[in-house]
Amino acid sequence: MHTTVDITELLQYGERVTFKKGDCLATSIAGESNGDIFILSSGICALSSISLDGKETTYLYFKREQFVGFTSLMTTFNLNYYGKKTFSIIAKTPCVAYRISNRSFQELLGFPSITALMVNTLTENLVYLMEHFHSSKNEPALVQFSRFLMDQAEQEPSGELLLDTVFTYQEIASYLGMHSVTIARMVKALREEGLIDKVGHQIRIINPQKMTNLITEEQKIDY
Amino acid sequence: MHTTVDITELLQYGERVTFKKGDCLATSIAGESNGDIFILSSGICALSSISLDGKETTYLYFKREQFVGFTSLMTTFNLNYYGKKTFSIIAKTPCVAYRISNRSFQELLGFPSITALMVNTLTENLVYLMEHFHSSKNEPALVQFSRFLMDQAEQEPSGELLLDTVFTYQEIASYLGMHSVTIARMVKALREEGLIDKVGHQIRIINPQKMTNLITEEQKIDY
Repeated sequence: MHTTVDITELLQYGERVTFKKGDCLATSIAGESNGDIFILSSGICALSSISLDGKETTYLYFKREQFVGFTSLMTTFNLNYYGKKTFSIIAKTPCVAYRISNRSFQELLGFPSITALMVNTLTENLVYLMEHFHSSKNEPALVQFSRFLMDQAEQEPSGELLLDTVFTYQEIASYLGMHSVTIARMVKALREEGLIDKVGHQIRIINPQKMTNLITEEQKIDY
Repeated sequence: MHTTVDITELLQYGERVTFKKGDCLATSIAGESNGDIFILSSGICALSSISLDGKETTYLYFKREQFVGFTSLMTTFNLNYYGKKTFSIIAKTPCVAYRISNRSFQELLGFPSITALMVNTLTENLVYLMEHFHSSKNEPALVQFSRFLMDQAEQEPSGELLLDTVFTYQEIASYLGMHSVTIARMVKALREEGLIDKVGHQIRIINPQKMTNLITEEQKIDY
Protein backbone atom coordinates (compact mmCIF):
# COMPACT_ATOMS: atom_id res chain seq x y z
CA MET A 1 0.00 0.00 0.00
CA HIS A 2 3.08 2.17 0.06
CA THR A 3 3.55 2.67 -3.65
CA THR A 4 0.40 3.86 -5.36
CA VAL A 5 0.84 5.10 -8.89
CA ASP A 6 -0.54 8.50 -9.85
CA ILE A 7 -3.67 7.93 -11.87
CA THR A 8 -2.57 10.38 -14.58
CA GLU A 9 0.26 7.96 -15.43
CA LEU A 10 -2.39 5.51 -16.61
CA LEU A 11 -3.89 7.82 -19.22
CA GLN A 12 -1.35 6.47 -21.73
CA TYR A 13 -3.09 3.08 -21.62
CA GLY A 14 -6.38 4.61 -22.61
CA GLU A 15 -7.97 6.10 -25.68
CA ARG A 16 -9.19 9.68 -25.33
CA VAL A 17 -12.96 9.97 -25.69
CA THR A 18 -15.42 12.77 -25.11
CA PHE A 19 -18.98 12.62 -23.85
CA LYS A 20 -21.82 15.08 -24.13
CA LYS A 21 -23.99 15.94 -21.19
CA GLY A 22 -26.50 13.12 -20.72
CA ASP A 23 -24.36 10.43 -22.40
CA CYS A 24 -24.15 7.08 -20.66
CA LEU A 25 -20.59 5.89 -20.05
CA ALA A 26 -21.42 2.48 -18.61
CA THR A 27 -24.34 0.40 -17.39
CA SER A 28 -24.77 -2.57 -15.14
CA ILE A 29 -27.99 -4.51 -15.61
CA ALA A 30 -28.87 -7.15 -13.03
CA GLY A 31 -25.22 -7.46 -12.06
CA GLU A 32 -23.94 -7.92 -15.62
CA SER A 33 -21.71 -5.02 -16.52
CA ASN A 34 -20.91 -4.01 -20.04
CA GLY A 35 -18.31 -1.71 -21.36
CA ASP A 36 -14.91 -0.58 -20.33
CA ILE A 37 -13.24 1.32 -17.55
CA PHE A 38 -12.68 5.06 -17.90
CA ILE A 39 -10.38 7.49 -16.23
CA LEU A 40 -12.21 10.77 -15.99
CA SER A 41 -10.00 13.66 -17.02
CA SER A 42 -12.50 16.50 -16.81
CA GLY A 43 -16.20 16.91 -16.15
CA ILE A 44 -18.65 15.40 -13.68
CA CYS A 45 -20.36 12.00 -13.90
CA ALA A 46 -23.01 10.47 -11.69
CA LEU A 47 -23.66 6.90 -10.65
CA SER A 48 -27.42 6.60 -10.70
CA SER A 49 -30.36 4.28 -11.19
CA ILE A 50 -33.78 4.66 -12.70
CA SER A 51 -36.62 3.00 -10.82
CA LEU A 52 -39.53 1.16 -12.47
CA ASP A 53 -41.64 4.31 -12.19
CA GLY A 54 -38.97 6.47 -13.82
CA LYS A 55 -37.48 8.15 -10.76
CA GLU A 56 -33.75 8.85 -10.98
CA THR A 57 -31.68 8.28 -7.85
CA THR A 58 -28.09 9.50 -7.76
CA TYR A 59 -25.69 7.73 -5.41
CA LEU A 60 -22.27 9.19 -6.12
CA TYR A 61 -20.63 11.87 -8.21
CA PHE A 62 -17.34 11.27 -9.93
CA LYS A 63 -15.10 14.24 -10.60
CA ARG A 64 -11.79 14.50 -12.43
CA GLU A 65 -9.07 11.88 -12.10
CA GLN A 66 -11.10 8.96 -10.90
CA PHE A 67 -11.72 5.49 -12.23
CA VAL A 68 -15.25 5.26 -13.58
CA GLY A 69 -17.01 2.09 -14.68
CA PHE A 70 -18.20 -1.27 -13.47
CA THR A 71 -15.61 -3.96 -13.12
CA SER A 72 -16.46 -7.39 -14.38
CA LEU A 73 -15.70 -8.64 -10.88
CA MET A 74 -19.19 -7.78 -9.88
CA THR A 75 -20.82 -10.75 -11.53
CA THR A 76 -19.31 -13.40 -9.28
CA PHE A 77 -21.19 -12.57 -6.10
CA ASN A 78 -23.81 -14.53 -4.36
CA LEU A 79 -26.35 -11.75 -4.75
CA ASN A 80 -29.82 -12.24 -6.15
CA TYR A 81 -30.41 -9.81 -8.97
CA TYR A 82 -34.18 -9.99 -9.13
CA GLY A 83 -36.00 -7.30 -10.99
CA LYS A 84 -33.21 -6.25 -13.36
CA LYS A 85 -32.04 -3.17 -11.55
CA THR A 86 -29.98 -0.96 -13.81
CA PHE A 87 -27.18 1.22 -12.55
CA SER A 88 -25.71 3.71 -14.99
CA ILE A 89 -22.86 6.16 -15.09
CA ILE A 90 -24.10 9.32 -16.78
CA ALA A 91 -22.14 12.37 -17.92
CA LYS A 92 -23.66 15.32 -16.07
CA THR A 93 -21.45 17.81 -17.93
CA PRO A 94 -19.34 17.48 -21.08
CA CYS A 95 -16.60 15.05 -20.08
CA VAL A 96 -13.17 14.03 -21.33
CA ALA A 97 -12.18 10.50 -20.37
CA TYR A 98 -9.63 7.85 -21.26
CA ARG A 99 -11.16 4.51 -22.16
CA ILE A 100 -9.30 1.38 -21.07
CA SER A 101 -10.73 -1.88 -22.37
CA ASN A 102 -11.80 -4.38 -19.77
CA ARG A 103 -9.12 -6.74 -20.99
CA SER A 104 -6.31 -4.17 -20.70
CA PHE A 105 -7.65 -3.20 -17.31
CA GLN A 106 -7.43 -6.78 -16.05
CA GLU A 107 -3.80 -6.81 -17.20
CA LEU A 108 -3.08 -3.52 -15.45
CA LEU A 109 -4.43 -5.03 -12.25
CA GLY A 110 -1.43 -7.35 -12.31
CA PHE A 111 0.68 -4.39 -11.17
CA PRO A 112 0.62 -3.92 -7.37
CA SER A 113 0.74 -0.13 -7.61
CA ILE A 114 -2.37 -0.10 -9.81
CA THR A 115 -4.22 -2.57 -7.63
CA ALA A 116 -3.36 -0.38 -4.64
CA LEU A 117 -4.83 2.61 -6.46
CA MET A 118 -7.96 0.57 -7.14
CA VAL A 119 -8.24 -0.32 -3.42
CA ASN A 120 -8.06 3.41 -2.64
CA THR A 121 -10.75 4.26 -5.17
CA LEU A 122 -13.10 1.52 -4.02
CA THR A 123 -12.61 2.42 -0.36
CA GLU A 124 -13.30 6.06 -1.14
CA ASN A 125 -16.49 5.20 -3.05
CA LEU A 126 -17.62 2.91 -0.24
CA VAL A 127 -17.09 5.62 2.38
CA TYR A 128 -18.97 8.23 0.33
CA LEU A 129 -21.83 5.83 -0.20
CA MET A 130 -22.01 5.00 3.54
CA GLU A 131 -22.01 8.70 4.38
CA HIS A 132 -24.71 9.43 1.83
CA PHE A 133 -26.85 6.50 2.97
CA HIS A 134 -26.42 7.44 6.63
CA SER A 135 -27.34 11.05 5.94
CA SER A 136 -30.42 10.13 3.91
CA LYS A 137 -31.71 7.77 6.60
CA ASN A 138 -30.99 9.79 9.71
CA GLU A 139 -30.66 13.51 9.13
CA PRO A 140 -33.21 16.30 8.76
CA ALA A 141 -33.59 17.63 5.20
CA LEU A 142 -31.82 20.91 5.98
CA VAL A 143 -28.81 19.11 7.48
CA GLN A 144 -28.63 16.83 4.44
CA PHE A 145 -28.76 19.81 2.11
CA SER A 146 -26.14 21.76 4.08
CA ARG A 147 -23.85 18.74 4.09
CA PHE A 148 -24.33 18.38 0.32
CA LEU A 149 -23.39 22.04 -0.25
CA MET A 150 -20.28 21.82 1.93
CA ASP A 151 -19.17 18.54 0.32
CA GLN A 152 -19.76 19.57 -3.30
CA ALA A 153 -18.87 23.28 -3.36
CA GLU A 154 -15.40 23.91 -4.72
CA GLN A 155 -13.01 26.63 -3.73
CA GLU A 156 -12.42 29.12 -6.53
CA PRO A 157 -8.99 30.78 -6.99
CA SER A 158 -10.60 33.83 -5.34
CA GLY A 159 -11.33 31.73 -2.23
CA GLU A 160 -15.06 31.65 -2.84
CA LEU A 161 -16.96 28.40 -2.30
CA LEU A 162 -19.06 27.85 -5.42
CA LEU A 163 -21.37 25.02 -6.42
CA ASP A 164 -21.00 23.80 -10.01
CA THR A 165 -23.87 24.82 -12.32
CA VAL A 166 -24.57 21.12 -12.96
CA PHE A 167 -26.27 21.02 -9.57
CA THR A 168 -29.70 22.30 -10.49
CA TYR A 169 -32.50 21.98 -7.94
CA GLN A 170 -33.68 18.90 -9.84
CA GLU A 171 -30.21 17.35 -9.74
CA ILE A 172 -29.82 18.01 -6.00
CA ALA A 173 -33.30 16.59 -5.45
CA SER A 174 -32.29 13.33 -7.20
CA TYR A 175 -29.28 13.00 -4.96
CA LEU A 176 -31.04 13.84 -1.71
CA GLY A 177 -34.23 11.94 -2.53
CA MET A 178 -36.36 15.05 -2.01
CA HIS A 179 -38.64 17.14 -4.16
CA SER A 180 -37.06 20.03 -6.07
CA VAL A 181 -39.61 22.37 -4.47
CA THR A 182 -38.13 21.45 -1.08
CA ILE A 183 -34.66 22.32 -2.37
CA ALA A 184 -35.90 25.70 -3.63
CA ARG A 185 -37.46 26.45 -0.24
CA MET A 186 -34.26 25.56 1.61
CA VAL A 187 -32.19 27.75 -0.75
CA LYS A 188 -34.55 30.64 -0.04
CA ALA A 189 -34.27 30.13 3.74
CA LEU A 190 -30.47 29.88 3.69
CA ARG A 191 -30.27 33.05 1.57
CA GLU A 192 -32.51 34.94 3.96
CA GLU A 193 -30.28 33.85 6.86
CA GLY A 194 -27.22 35.13 4.96
CA LEU A 195 -25.49 31.74 4.70
CA ILE A 196 -25.54 31.49 0.91
CA ASP A 197 -26.30 33.70 -2.07
CA LYS A 198 -26.51 33.17 -5.79
CA VAL A 199 -24.09 34.26 -8.53
CA GLY A 200 -26.13 33.85 -11.68
CA HIS A 201 -27.32 30.25 -11.47
CA GLN A 202 -24.60 29.20 -9.04
CA ILE A 203 -24.98 28.83 -5.30
CA ARG A 204 -22.18 30.52 -3.34
CA ILE A 205 -21.53 29.74 0.30
CA ILE A 206 -20.83 33.02 2.06
CA ASN A 207 -20.77 31.81 5.65
CA PRO A 208 -19.15 28.37 5.82
CA GLN A 209 -18.88 28.51 9.61
CA LYS A 210 -22.62 28.94 10.04
CA MET A 211 -23.23 26.21 7.45
CA THR A 212 -21.08 23.88 9.53
CA ASN A 213 -23.02 24.82 12.67
CA LEU A 214 -26.23 23.91 10.88
CA ILE A 215 -24.82 20.43 10.34
CA THR A 216 -23.13 19.78 13.67
CA GLU A 217 -25.75 21.35 15.90
CA GLU A 218 -28.75 20.62 13.71
CA GLN A 219 -29.81 24.24 14.21
CA LYS A 220 -33.36 24.89 13.19
CA ILE A 221 -34.21 27.31 10.39
CA ASP A 222 -37.79 27.49 9.20
CA TYR A 223 -38.34 26.95 5.51
CA MET B 1 -6.57 -10.04 -10.86
CA HIS B 2 -5.80 -13.62 -11.88
CA THR B 3 -4.27 -14.87 -8.67
CA THR B 4 -6.40 -14.13 -5.66
CA VAL B 5 -5.36 -15.91 -2.52
CA ASP B 6 -7.95 -17.83 -0.52
CA ILE B 7 -8.82 -15.79 2.54
CA THR B 8 -8.41 -18.78 4.86
CA GLU B 9 -4.69 -18.80 4.03
CA LEU B 10 -4.44 -15.45 5.81
CA LEU B 11 -5.74 -16.72 9.14
CA GLN B 12 -2.15 -17.66 10.09
CA TYR B 13 -1.26 -13.94 10.19
CA GLY B 14 -3.99 -13.26 12.73
CA GLU B 15 -4.64 -13.93 16.38
CA ARG B 16 -7.80 -15.89 17.13
CA VAL B 17 -10.31 -13.84 19.11
CA THR B 18 -13.93 -14.40 20.10
CA PHE B 19 -16.73 -11.89 20.45
CA LYS B 20 -20.01 -12.08 22.29
CA LYS B 21 -23.24 -10.94 20.74
CA GLY B 22 -23.34 -7.15 20.95
CA ASP B 23 -19.56 -6.65 21.11
CA CYS B 24 -18.09 -3.93 18.95
CA LEU B 25 -15.24 -5.11 16.70
CA ALA B 26 -14.31 -1.74 15.22
CA THR B 27 -15.49 1.85 15.04
CA SER B 28 -14.90 4.77 12.75
CA ILE B 29 -15.63 8.18 14.27
CA ALA B 30 -15.68 11.16 11.94
CA GLY B 31 -13.49 9.30 9.46
CA GLU B 32 -10.85 8.30 12.00
CA SER B 33 -10.76 4.56 12.31
CA ASN B 34 -9.37 2.74 15.27
CA GLY B 35 -8.48 -0.86 15.71
CA ASP B 36 -7.40 -3.66 13.50
CA ILE B 37 -8.66 -5.72 10.61
CA PHE B 38 -10.42 -9.01 11.28
CA ILE B 39 -11.12 -12.03 9.19
CA LEU B 40 -14.46 -13.38 10.29
CA SER B 41 -14.32 -17.14 10.72
CA SER B 42 -17.83 -17.76 12.04
CA GLY B 43 -20.82 -15.71 13.09
CA ILE B 44 -22.56 -12.63 11.70
CA CYS B 45 -21.49 -8.99 12.10
CA ALA B 46 -23.24 -5.83 11.01
CA LEU B 47 -21.92 -2.50 9.78
CA SER B 48 -24.19 0.05 11.39
CA SER B 49 -24.50 3.55 12.71
CA ILE B 50 -26.35 5.14 15.60
CA SER B 51 -28.01 8.48 14.84
CA LEU B 52 -28.08 11.41 17.27
CA ASP B 53 -31.54 10.34 18.42
CA GLY B 54 -30.44 6.77 19.07
CA LYS B 55 -31.79 5.04 15.97
CA GLU B 56 -29.66 2.16 14.71
CA THR B 57 -29.26 1.83 10.95
CA THR B 58 -27.68 -1.32 9.52
CA TYR B 59 -26.00 -1.08 6.13
CA LEU B 60 -24.35 -4.42 5.53
CA TYR B 61 -24.03 -7.83 7.12
CA PHE B 62 -20.74 -9.67 7.15
CA LYS B 63 -20.80 -13.43 7.25
CA ARG B 64 -17.98 -15.96 7.50
CA GLU B 65 -14.72 -15.54 5.64
CA GLN B 66 -14.78 -11.86 4.98
CA PHE B 67 -12.48 -9.03 5.90
CA VAL B 68 -14.09 -6.89 8.56
CA GLY B 69 -12.83 -3.53 9.78
CA PHE B 70 -12.06 -0.03 8.68
CA THR B 71 -8.82 0.52 6.83
CA SER B 72 -6.72 3.49 7.80
CA LEU B 73 -6.91 4.51 4.15
CA MET B 74 -10.20 6.16 4.87
CA THR B 75 -8.76 9.21 6.55
CA THR B 76 -7.08 10.70 3.51
CA PHE B 77 -10.20 11.74 1.62
CA ASN B 78 -11.46 15.16 0.88
CA LEU B 79 -14.69 14.52 2.72
CA ASN B 80 -16.09 16.79 5.39
CA TYR B 81 -16.77 14.83 8.53
CA TYR B 82 -19.09 17.26 10.26
CA GLY B 83 -21.16 16.01 13.12
CA LYS B 84 -18.97 13.09 14.19
CA LYS B 85 -20.86 10.30 12.55
CA THR B 86 -19.90 6.96 14.05
CA PHE B 87 -19.93 3.74 12.08
CA SER B 88 -19.46 0.53 14.03
CA ILE B 89 -19.05 -3.14 13.29
CA ILE B 90 -21.09 -5.08 15.82
CA ALA B 91 -21.19 -8.82 16.47
CA LYS B 92 -24.79 -9.87 15.95
CA THR B 93 -24.07 -13.44 17.06
CA PRO B 94 -21.13 -14.99 18.92
CA CYS B 95 -18.24 -14.63 16.47
CA VAL B 96 -14.83 -16.14 15.96
CA ALA B 97 -12.40 -13.89 14.12
CA TYR B 98 -8.70 -13.56 13.42
CA ARG B 99 -7.27 -10.19 14.34
CA ILE B 100 -4.58 -8.75 12.07
CA SER B 101 -2.94 -5.57 13.34
CA ASN B 102 -3.23 -2.56 11.08
CA ARG B 103 0.52 -2.60 10.65
CA SER B 104 0.67 -6.25 9.58
CA PHE B 105 -2.26 -5.65 7.29
CA GLN B 106 -0.45 -2.81 5.52
CA GLU B 107 2.47 -5.20 4.99
CA LEU B 108 0.17 -7.91 3.63
CA LEU B 109 -1.17 -5.40 1.12
CA GLY B 110 2.30 -5.49 -0.45
CA PHE B 111 1.37 -8.87 -1.92
CA PRO B 112 -0.58 -8.60 -5.20
CA SER B 113 -2.73 -11.64 -4.43
CA ILE B 114 -3.87 -10.10 -1.16
CA THR B 115 -4.50 -6.71 -2.68
CA ALA B 116 -6.55 -8.46 -5.37
CA LEU B 117 -8.60 -10.15 -2.65
CA MET B 118 -9.12 -6.76 -1.03
CA VAL B 119 -10.33 -5.31 -4.37
CA ASN B 120 -12.84 -8.18 -4.54
CA THR B 121 -14.06 -7.58 -1.00
CA LEU B 122 -14.43 -3.83 -1.47
CA THR B 123 -16.23 -4.24 -4.80
CA GLU B 124 -18.59 -6.75 -3.22
CA ASN B 125 -19.36 -4.43 -0.30
CA LEU B 126 -19.90 -1.53 -2.68
CA VAL B 127 -22.33 -3.52 -4.81
CA TYR B 128 -24.30 -4.71 -1.77
CA LEU B 129 -24.49 -1.17 -0.46
CA MET B 130 -25.68 0.18 -3.85
CA GLU B 131 -28.33 -2.53 -4.02
CA HIS B 132 -29.47 -1.85 -0.47
CA PHE B 133 -29.57 1.92 -1.04
CA HIS B 134 -31.44 1.51 -4.33
CA SER B 135 -33.98 -0.81 -2.75
CA SER B 136 -34.58 1.47 0.24
CA LYS B 137 -35.13 4.50 -2.00
CA ASN B 138 -37.22 2.99 -4.74
CA GLU B 139 -39.04 -0.18 -3.79
CA PRO B 140 -42.30 -0.81 -1.92
CA ALA B 141 -41.86 -2.16 1.61
CA LEU B 142 -43.04 -5.66 0.69
CA VAL B 143 -40.58 -5.90 -2.20
CA GLN B 144 -37.75 -4.72 0.07
CA PHE B 145 -38.69 -7.31 2.67
CA SER B 146 -39.00 -10.12 0.10
CA ARG B 147 -35.61 -9.19 -1.35
CA PHE B 148 -34.12 -9.21 2.14
CA LEU B 149 -35.49 -12.71 2.83
CA MET B 150 -34.23 -14.10 -0.47
CA ASP B 151 -30.79 -12.52 -0.02
CA GLN B 152 -30.26 -13.52 3.60
CA ALA B 153 -31.94 -16.94 3.87
CA GLU B 154 -29.44 -19.77 3.70
CA GLN B 155 -29.96 -23.19 2.25
CA GLU B 156 -29.89 -25.92 4.88
CA PRO B 157 -28.43 -29.37 4.12
CA SER B 158 -32.08 -30.48 3.83
CA GLY B 159 -32.59 -27.93 1.03
CA GLU B 160 -34.77 -25.66 3.12
CA LEU B 161 -34.26 -21.89 2.92
CA LEU B 162 -34.00 -20.67 6.51
CA LEU B 163 -33.35 -17.21 7.93
CA ASP B 164 -30.84 -17.07 10.79
CA THR B 165 -32.38 -16.46 14.22
CA VAL B 166 -30.29 -13.27 14.50
CA PHE B 167 -32.81 -11.61 12.18
CA THR B 168 -35.47 -10.63 14.68
CA TYR B 169 -38.22 -8.26 13.55
CA GLN B 170 -36.28 -5.46 15.25
CA GLU B 171 -33.07 -6.38 13.44
CA ILE B 172 -34.81 -6.54 10.05
CA ALA B 173 -36.48 -3.20 10.81
CA SER B 174 -33.05 -1.60 11.44
CA TYR B 175 -31.82 -2.85 8.09
CA LEU B 176 -34.89 -1.89 6.09
CA GLY B 177 -35.48 1.42 7.87
CA MET B 178 -39.02 0.41 8.81
CA HIS B 179 -40.90 -0.15 12.03
CA SER B 180 -40.81 -3.65 13.51
CA VAL B 181 -44.64 -3.62 13.55
CA THR B 182 -44.54 -3.30 9.75
CA ILE B 183 -42.23 -6.32 9.56
CA ALA B 184 -44.61 -8.36 11.74
CA ARG B 185 -47.54 -7.45 9.49
CA MET B 186 -45.65 -8.43 6.34
CA VAL B 187 -44.65 -11.76 7.91
CA LYS B 188 -48.28 -12.43 8.75
CA ALA B 189 -49.40 -11.62 5.19
CA LEU B 190 -46.71 -13.78 3.57
CA ARG B 191 -47.62 -16.67 5.88
CA GLU B 192 -51.29 -16.38 4.99
CA GLU B 193 -50.37 -16.46 1.29
CA GLY B 194 -48.33 -19.63 1.88
CA LEU B 195 -44.97 -18.12 0.84
CA ILE B 196 -43.23 -18.50 4.20
CA ASP B 197 -43.84 -20.20 7.52
CA LYS B 198 -42.05 -20.26 10.85
CA VAL B 199 -39.98 -23.01 12.43
CA GLY B 200 -39.73 -21.92 16.06
CA HIS B 201 -38.40 -18.38 15.79
CA GLN B 202 -36.96 -18.86 12.30
CA ILE B 203 -38.58 -17.76 9.07
CA ARG B 204 -38.60 -20.48 6.42
CA ILE B 205 -39.24 -19.71 2.76
CA ILE B 206 -41.55 -22.39 1.42
CA ASN B 207 -42.29 -20.94 -2.01
CA PRO B 208 -39.15 -19.23 -3.38
CA GLN B 209 -40.68 -18.92 -6.86
CA LYS B 210 -43.61 -16.89 -5.59
CA MET B 211 -41.24 -14.82 -3.45
CA THR B 212 -39.26 -14.02 -6.59
CA ASN B 213 -42.45 -13.05 -8.41
CA LEU B 214 -43.27 -10.64 -5.60
CA ILE B 215 -39.97 -8.91 -6.26
CA THR B 216 -39.85 -8.91 -10.04
CA GLU B 217 -43.51 -8.18 -10.68
CA GLU B 218 -44.11 -6.11 -7.55
CA GLN B 219 -47.25 -8.19 -6.98
CA LYS B 220 -49.55 -6.66 -4.45
CA ILE B 221 -50.43 -8.44 -1.24
CA ASP B 222 -52.41 -6.56 1.37
CA TYR B 223 -50.87 -6.40 4.82
